[in-house]
Amino acid sequence: MDSYLGLSSLDTPCVVVDEEIMDNNIQRFQQYCDSHNITLRPHIKTHKIPALAHRQLMAGAIGINCQKISEAEVFADAGINDILITFNILGKTKLERLAALAKRVKLTVVADNKETVVQLAAYFREHNSSLSVLVECDTGAQRCGVQTPQAAQQLAALIGSLVGVTFSGLMTYPPVNRAREVNAWLKEARQLCEKIGLKPKVISSGGTPSMYQAELYDEATEYRVGTYIYNDKSLVERGDCEYKDCAMTVLATVVSCPTQDRVVIDAGSKALTSDLLGMQGHGWIREYPQAKIYALSEEHGCIDFSDCELRPSIGDKLNIVPNHVCVVSNLFDYVYFLQSDNRLKKVDVAARGKVW
Amino acid sequence: MDSYLGLSSLDTPCVVVDEEIMDNNIQRFQQYCDSHNITLRPHIKTHKIPALAHRQLMAGAIGINCQKISEAEVFADAGINDILITFNILGKTKLERLAALAKRVKLTVVADNKETVVQLAAYFREHNSSLSVLVECDTGAQRCGVQTPQAAQQLAALIGSLVGVTFSGLMTYPPVNRAREVNAWLKEARQLCEKIGLKPKVISSGGTPSMYQAELYDEATEYRVGTYIYNDKSLVERGDCEYKDCAMTVLATVVSCPTQDRVVIDAGSKALTSDLLGMQGHGWIREYPQAKIYALSEEHGCIDFSDCELRPSIGDKLNIVPNHVCVVSNLFDYVYFLQSDNRLKKVDVAARGKVW
Repeated sequence: MDSYLGLSSLDTPCVVVDEEIMDNNIQRFQQYCDSHNITLRPHIKTHKIPALAHRQLMAGAIGINCQKISEAEVFADAGINDILITFNILGKTKLERLAALAKRVKLTVVADNKETVVQLAAYFREHNSSLSVLVECDTGAQRCGVQTPQAAQQLAALIGSLVGVTFSGLMTYPPVNRAREVNAWLKEARQLCEKIGLKPKVISSGGTPSMYQAELYDEATEYRVGTYIYNDKSLVERGDCEYKDCAMTVLATVVSCPTQDRVVIDAGSKALTSDLLGMQGHGWIREYPQAKIYALSEEHGCIDFSDCELRPSIGDKLNIVPNHVCVVSNLFDYVYFLQSDNRLKKVDVAARGKVW
Repeated sequence: MDSYLGLSSLDTPCVVVDEEIMDNNIQRFQQYCDSHNITLRPHIKTHKIPALAHRQLMAGAIGINCQKISEAEVFADAGINDILITFNILGKTKLERLAALAKRVKLTVVADNKETVVQLAAYFREHNSSLSVLVECDTGAQRCGVQTPQAAQQLAALIGSLVGVTFSGLMTYPPVNRAREVNAWLKEARQLCEKIGLKPKVISSGGTPSMYQAELYDEATEYRVGTYIYNDKSLVERGDCEYKDCAMTVLATVVSCPTQDRVVIDAGSKALTSDLLGMQGHGWIREYPQAKIYALSEEHGCIDFSDCELRPSIGDKLNIVPNHVCVVSNLFDYVYFLQSDNRLKKVDVAARGKVW
């Protein structure tokens, strides 16, 4: 199949990524990191495309962050050789795959509980190997993680005591805008670990919101960030970027104008997802910034044009910046890159659906 | 690959469909339709699996309903030969595919506007063919559809006047619990069409909520319904079924218990979706009915166990009835059928991601 296509040939709904905006996004944050001596480890959940991870590495990232083994396998297949999986890995089938992965890439995982550590150690010890493990710390975001620096020290001690696992440091998915508290937490945990002879080599923090405050995490040795490569409506509304910095749009067609103000497009929750992230509406329409996508069913999006001077016609195409790009990437088998010569290139989303 | 697997070998998160519950769901609603002389046309958006459409047809359905051409193509490939696409189809590439599809199955589409009708007619006339078209009517659900019975008559007249399209009747996606108003609307539209010599052969209504009131749509000649094959939390909360009737669960693993009451699983919005459909929480846990899935990030689900007497352990597997099964089906490349012999069969979700 010829992978180069013209815009008019695109069947909607589909995803279009403006390559120039995307490359600018990669460069801009890399430059910020470089100027602040921050080690960058991009999270590939946002795009799930190995070629984009290679661009991030070429720009200066030291490796990638995955959430699941199945994602990591895809990126290892594509030649990425430094992977951090920020997830508790459990169970025989997953451990088998993890061990296979550890043989071919520099692999690190996280753990926040004894059971995970014991399973990892038992499996890797049996296979005469040792896996690098970070202790996941809940510094206030209230998802996973040990609850106190003392608990971090205890889990580090367990990792340090077992054959089959190697204590490599700490990891946190921090709450937004609380760098001072996060630093204090991590510093105490680091010092407690050092006190028992376990110096963290890596202290990994991250998060796209407020990513231009990454320099404030002075306890961290690396920063993980995902959404910045595309950006989306959630980041615009937080003030982290502008719509001109949003590289990904969902291209949709106007299929019905049943009333003066109601316009219906062929993109619903199976294209834009239902993610609201606390916002109003289901995306931002580049051609009609005042229009509101007020309701999605699975394959229809209903838009209110009552605040707009102009109305689209049936058959018109609209470019929609989604609320949350990471979940949109997980719906489409491929996306189209809009290149600087205005040609489109079809690119597989190789890790789409790799959630296990 | 051996497609038969044991439960313990499943990597989570994944989708498990209890075949017996599913078959009972198919039979129960088919029997209801049979006993009320209702013609059933299942919507395949819920499962996106051709083998399940064949089961629905074997049970007595007359054909299937798709929302997009790309779905219909998959089901036509699998031998389904009566397909209604309830969507305005526009644009050259889609019309080409529609014409190819019309050559191999009994195909009907809908239209709610002149532009769609004119495009369909021009394309099919040029190819010496004629496509069956229903006029989509907005009887109160406020999505697509002509706004009045008079507008339905006008669009029917246009269809009747053009070579390349054939007027076949009316279609509506009705509002819930307003059968009387919907009937009145459809009756008036039917009579207006008949008055100009265009007798609707088909009047298609549908909707899963309140599907056991399908008999009340006495103007309709067929009923479309999707979710009934699996059922989900939204239908339980509406009183349309019970949890024992829910055939699909997302199987997840407990990966972290950071606090006494917080449990984290490996299924987030990339497995359960963010669809709330007006409800609280992101699914119902079969093993812990009192537990509340209160937050999803992409690959983590946070559960509050404070109302539960018992707590799961790390590594335990949980069966979650999703809020909305149709969008979950669209995330997974395959599902596992749990058969009556307790063996699992891996089945491709052939039309997953077919949204264009």
